[in-house]
Amino acid sequence: MSVLVTGGAGFIGSHIAAALHRSGKTVVILDDLSGGQWRNIPAGTTFVRGSIVDVALVNQLFTDHHFTVVYHLAAYAAEGLSPFIRRFNYTNNLVGSINLINAAINHGTRRFVFTSSIAVYGPGQTPMTEALTPQPIDPYGIAKLAVEQDLQAAFAQFGLEYAIFRPHNVYGEGQHIADPYRNVVGIFMRCVLEGRPLPIFGDGSQTRAFSYIDDVAPVIVRAGFEDVARNEIFNVGADSVVSVRDLATEICRLFDVPCRIETLPPRHEVVDAFSSHERVRSAFNLGEPRSLADGLARMAAWVKQTGVPTPTEAQAIEVTRGLPPSWAQSR
Amino acid sequence: MSVLVTGGAGFIGSHIAAALHRSGKTVVILDDLSGGQWRNIPAGTTFVRGSIVDVALVNQLFTDHHFTVVYHLAAYAAEGLSPFIRRFNYTNNLVGSINLINAAINHGTRRFVFTSSIAVYGPGQTPMTEALTPQPIDPYGIAKLAVEQDLQAAFAQFGLEYAIFRPHNVYGEGQHIADPYRNVVGIFMRCVLEGRPLPIFGDGSQTRAFSYIDDVAPVIVRAGFEDVARNEIFNVGADSVVSVRDLATEICRLFDVPCRIETLPPRHEVVDAFSSHERVRSAFNLGEPRSLADGLARMAAWVKQTGVPTPTEAQAIEVTRGLPPSWAQSR
Repeated sequence: MSVLVTGGAGFIGSHIAAALHRSGKTVVILDDLSGGQWRNIPAGTTFVRGSIVDVALVNQLFTDHHFTVVYHLAAYAAEGLSPFIRRFNYTNNLVGSINLINAAINHGTRRFVFTSSIAVYGPGQTPMTEALTPQPIDPYGIAKLAVEQDLQAAFAQFGLEYAIFRPHNVYGEGQHIADPYRNVVGIFMRCVLEGRPLPIFGDGSQTRAFSYIDDVAPVIVRAGFEDVARNEIFNVGADSVVSVRDLATEICRLFDVPCRIETLPPRHEVVDAFSSHERVRSAFNLGEPRSLADGLARMAAWVKQTGVPTPTEAQAIEVTRGLPPSWAQSR
Repeated sequence: MSVLVTGGAGFIGSHIAAALHRSGKTVVILDDLSGGQWRNIPAGTTFVRGSIVDVALVNQLFTDHHFTVVYHLAAYAAEGLSPFIRRFNYTNNLVGSINLINAAINHGTRRFVFTSSIAVYGPGQTPMTEALTPQPIDPYGIAKLAVEQDLQAAFAQFGLEYAIFRPHNVYGEGQHIADPYRNVVGIFMRCVLEGRPLPIFGDGSQTRAFSYIDDVAPVIVRAGFEDVARNEIFNVGADSVVSVRDLATEICRLFDVPCRIETLPPRHEVVDAFSSHERVRSAFNLGEPRSLADGLARMAAWVKQTGVPTPTEAQAIEVTRGLPPSWAQSR
């Protein structure tokens, strides 16, 4: 049985690809390595370097491999940057996804597992539950929601099953810690390693619930094959809420360094973002998620060992008005 | 004062461009003539043949003309075909719109007037009111909703004002009656002129409210400049509901021919689609819309005079599974 994992050289995708390979599936990875890394690609998988935007390549892959299940994780996932790269965001994250959906319809793929995001919910709706009406406020969340809706339409009209996950703030071993635009846990750890202060937008009181990778990837893997996930939408991740400032303190403690903060001007973002996971826990019979202290300790141990990778390439900016100065510098 | 009308050689767009020109605005039209027609372009306007997908062209136009208001009507508007042309739909209707939104942000455009569609509402919500939660079921409606959401995000972050209209089933003088995929009024009139039976998907009991062009275009024109439209969403059009079968009967009566129907297999579509217009009528102080009989008579007189134009080009199909045979033939 052949499965496709897009973004399989990325953080979450590589964990999913590895688990699928361990369970005996024939795994093909499609990744353009814009955010993914060679070192993440699990041994025993077939790797194809390329983009989901390349429609000819996507069609060829489906023709060659007859995928039973598609795990679609490829995306440019810098939510905060998305208002400044609107065109790229919709082209890469939406039209790229549509290439896969078209191919899945045309080739009779059974199920399409999609990692959306809690970005679809928008502000002022905490804890976010799957019953809420999505009200995204940035192009990243809008594109994710559109893909969700397109998948639902594709099932209704063509019978392509879907399973949609809305994870949030996932961290752990394998994460790219040198992406200037995203992954606050990784950004903080990189700063510590490089002896720089930890950058925080505003006063750091914005809250997030950080999800350890092993509380996210395994359930997404199961969703490709278990009945309980058929045509369902699930939040997935941890519940415990922490402020970004407290996260900084905790990471400095783990690395045993004094906590120096660089305060940046506030940016356009959802202030409080955390979600309920009752639904996924009940459906998949999951245990309690790993504690933040424990998860961060595991990631810190890995980061100390592997160090800082080559930073991801700067993204071409389409709108410079209101671009946070720190991001303008990193271009 | 310079304004841009995308799709200004199209049906609704050309009426809007003409009205703006009459009111003394400097009007630039951008249209790729995929659905628009040379004969529609109002005298006195500047016409640029090109696509909203051409980002370099879009940016150049904004640099050259410093538009105060953008009226964005360019779209591939065949809703029923959209599930079979997913990639084209999102590229043309969403990414193309995003090129305009980016440029409007970058060049300080004051207001962006967007023609969305009642396709955003989806099924089972009649009469459709602006307070309902949109639940589109096809790529056309999904893309329109995403543009609406992106405009709202663009105002919140960059101050670009918007006015959004959700028209439906607009007909009248200037409509392209030789598009095989859309405009049932035009399709029926063309069949009558060519002596062919009128094609109906299913039993023809699906209902629509057909809106005469003069009940739609003038209010959209006003929305570019009146305070009442600032950051608002309006349904616009007629209320009177008619079944597609009864529409066929009425058109045959107008042309004084016996009514022959060709029954096609039912297709994936919203069965009942009509909306409330209390909001737009109250905000703009509008009178009663023109009756269907009166509007159809006016359009019929025009069609008898102008005849059948060159059919629009067939669209490249991406998914052939479930494509209505009548559409497959017209390729």
